[in-house]
Amino acid sequence: MHFHIVRALADGPASIWKLLRRTDGPIRHVYAACRELVAGNVIRHEAGQFVLTAGQHPVVAAASRRDFRDVKDQLAPIVRQAPGPAAEYFQERLVLEDLLKRLDFVYQRGDLAGRRLFVLGDDDLFSLAAALTGLPARVTVAEIDQRLVQFIADQAKRRRLEVETLHYNAADPLPKRFRRAFDVFVTDPVETLKGFTTTISRGLAALGHPGTAYFGLTELECPPVRWMAFQRMLHRAGLVLTDILRDHSWYVNEAIDEAELAQTALKRESPFQPLPPQDCLWYRSSFHRAVTVRRPTPPITGRVRFDKSFYSDRWVMTTS
Amino acid sequence: MHFHIVRALADGPASIWKLLRRTDGPIRHVYAACRELVAGNVIRHEAGQFVLTAGQHPVVAAASRRDFRDVKDQLAPIVRQAPGPAAEYFQERLVLEDLLKRLDFVYQRGDLAGRRLFVLGDDDLFSLAAALTGLPARVTVAEIDQRLVQFIADQAKRRRLEVETLHYNAADPLPKRFRRAFDVFVTDPVETLKGFTTTISRGLAALGHPGTAYFGLTELECPPVRWMAFQRMLHRAGLVLTDILRDHSWYVNEAIDEAELAQTALKRESPFQPLPPQDCLWYRSSFHRAVTVRRPTPPITGRVRFDKSFYSDRWVMTTS
Repeated sequence: MHFHIVRALADGPASIWKLLRRTDGPIRHVYAACRELVAGNVIRHEAGQFVLTAGQHPVVAAASRRDFRDVKDQLAPIVRQAPGPAAEYFQERLVLEDLLKRLDFVYQRGDLAGRRLFVLGDDDLFSLAAALTGLPARVTVAEIDQRLVQFIADQAKRRRLEVETLHYNAADPLPKRFRRAFDVFVTDPVETLKGFTTTISRGLAALGHPGTAYFGLTELECPPVRWMAFQRMLHRAGLVLTDILRDHSWYVNEAIDEAELAQTALKRESPFQPLPPQDCLWYRSSFHRAVTVRRPTPPITGRVRFDKSFYSDRWVMTTS
Repeated sequence: MHFHIVRALADGPASIWKLLRRTDGPIRHVYAACRELVAGNVIRHEAGQFVLTAGQHPVVAAASRRDFRDVKDQLAPIVRQAPGPAAEYFQERLVLEDLLKRLDFVYQRGDLAGRRLFVLGDDDLFSLAAALTGLPARVTVAEIDQRLVQFIADQAKRRRLEVETLHYNAADPLPKRFRRAFDVFVTDPVETLKGFTTTISRGLAALGHPGTAYFGLTELECPPVRWMAFQRMLHRAGLVLTDILRDHSWYVNEAIDEAELAQTALKRESPFQPLPPQDCLWYRSSFHRAVTVRRPTPPITGRVRFDKSFYSDRWVMTTS
């Protein structure tokens, strides 16, 4: 909230209406935040306008970011060098533009600048994108694919980015030192009941209150009753959904080669054979945001069996 | 689903990938729908492409709609003549462009063409907009403001639009003849606990299964714990959220005049007086879509007291 207000004022003086326009959350909270910022001499009010009192406020620089084009320019060659996503780990890389769209959305919500980010599974390299903005207080990435862990660590070292990497399978409990240690987590979960619940649980274990969760979820491999189960699970865990952005994130569809495709339900159950080559982007997810209303209680805390039910069911058609 | 596929093919032959791209829902359902449409000779498959078999399929014409600019052109003068929204009924009119955005979104989801629509509260004139497309099977509007009921009925008659109007206060039970009689309902609910639960309950009473609910909800006058209560209520009623589109719908802020503004918490509790004139659009809502996973069970079916708790609480600041 404070970030939203300071960011709006970094553009110049603004009426309360313009602050309300640029801020997420209740009017009552915007009013309270204005009072606190005035009391702290960060902003002042004169002739119906709010203005920044001084340029030194720690969030002013962060708040002045206009776009992430520079991040995209730096990230594009990194993505080209990265090890390809592995179908064995149910990975599929985001279109670069949509990764940046995610980054911008997280930033706009006030969930990037000064925040501690936990990225769970990261063939998209969101961790590097976030670190390249220079805005987060901390970026930690936990990833199952050792090649990716190494690649991210190497890139971070070479570019002097503070990204902590961890080789981690979400079927295992979250290491103690990461519990309740983050403000934000970002993941693209497996969409089976077990896979989703487990993956989200690890993220929630990493999260304190207030905290924010971001994740992609498809309609393609996950029917409404399953979405319902996931939404209820989030509620029981103490989170409320604030955004479900349809067709937000598109994927490049390069992880599955022709030989692998032949093994999938996508191919086997296609009503009409042969399945022609992919001639457009088609795989996409709805980007979800949820916030804590209390300290989150992940439904799963112990180890789960990393068996077929973790990654496969009758709705998952691209990898089984 | 069938509508999605036929719509995609109305643009020309398409691979299964292009159908998946253009269709909401699980891959498995897209496959099943393709099989049914081929069996019914509506579409056929040749050389890796699907094509429409004949132009006569009832949804082909509907599916060929590209945009709603003609609707906007017809609607704009109607909106100018309409009685202004009444603050006493907690109404605030949508920006016309955003009303059309809603219409387009509903259309894209397959929830307009051939559907029976129930519009609950309609100072935005969504009912006329929907009827002007010529696509719905039925449009019924229930509205508390007698001036609006009359206006919508007059306009519908003059333009030969089939819009059924009902003078109705959502505090009353839904008339029997409307129960389970619709596929889709659209509303902008009051955001108190009682007001929201009651308004949505009336919509759910109107809805059969499968059915779809659309509504706007703000962060401005509704905190996360309240959103949580609403989401849980929807789940218990048998619906799952599929979309929460932030900043989708902006409002014109004309219902509240200066004298009324002085009576509001928005003015009274403003941290810094005087409150200057509004100098931008600022009031907006997140557009929600939810679908039934079973026959919906509205939490409230009887009459509720239309008292202060219906429309007022400490978060509602623009009308109390």
